[in-house]
Amino acid sequence: MLKSVHPLLNAEVLYAMRQMGHGDDLVIADTNFPAETVARETTFGRLLRIDADLPGTVRAVLSQFPLDTFVDNAARRMEVVGKPAEVLPIHAEVQREIDAAEGAGKFKLVGVERFAFYEAAKKSFAVIQAHERRFYGCFIFKMGVIPPEQGF
Amino acid sequence: MLKSVHPLLNAEVLYAMRQMGHGDDLVIADTNFPAETVARETTFGRLLRIDADLPGTVRAVLSQFPLDTFVDNAARRMEVVGKPAEVLPIHAEVQREIDAAEGAGKFKLVGVERFAFYEAAKKSFAVIQAHERRFYGCFIFKMGVIPPEQGF
Repeated sequence: MLKSVHPLLNAEVLYAMRQMGHGDDLVIADTNFPAETVARETTFGRLLRIDADLPGTVRAVLSQFPLDTFVDNAARRMEVVGKPAEVLPIHAEVQREIDAAEGAGKFKLVGVERFAFYEAAKKSFAVIQAHERRFYGCFIFKMGVIPPEQGF
Repeated sequence: MLKSVHPLLNAEVLYAMRQMGHGDDLVIADTNFPAETVARETTFGRLLRIDADLPGTVRAVLSQFPLDTFVDNAARRMEVVGKPAEVLPIHAEVQREIDAAEGAGKFKLVGVERFAFYEAAKKSFAVIQAHERRFYGCFIFKMGVIPPEQGF
């Protein structure tokens, strides 16, 4: 184990995340998402797994992953088919994780239509599949930057 | 970049370190060390690199790597050939990094004869070669544990 790395961030996930830079996208998806198919088209090319629920996975990832302040859609969610404005409990739970990690009201989840989401996901750096049975537990996070005066 | 990971810990190094557990050894060595040859015999099997000097590399690694409190040789250094008791400036500098990371007087560098060091290094989990020209900049660190009440 490492001193300040969340235990759910396994070696493969950490390996992929550490290769990402500003503007790179990371997908976190539920168990019904075509994760393997999509992951093959990403930069990393292999599917990553975290066997925790979606909000727990987002919490672990955002403990290390800075969201991008340069854009207004740094956190995206898949829209419910036919009901783009509907916010499901899983969306609200992930929004709470974002708020907890980055500050309330700083990043608002932006909806993306299902097939547009697939296309965006294929252009991402990597896909993490979580152990989450609920539908529409599909998110894309855009990596931001850490200034030199922060951290080490 | 990641929020609380030292920038010198590149993706490969982080990938290897995250795979280590209690009692696994990590070698950090200077530029004259037969690093590639030794690394092929380790568990990880590939040489890792950090292009910083030895003390800077140790500082980055120990920011994440807990030393093992179960043994009295969790931090070892290669002895000067023919002068096993001689402590070189690089040894003193690394001892200071250990003290800074883990608390003064908690872990004292233990000397190992050159060929015994090679044998121990081959049994380690992985080898990191630093950009360090000084002789005898060769160390082995044994991973400790992080209790559940610490961190996440």
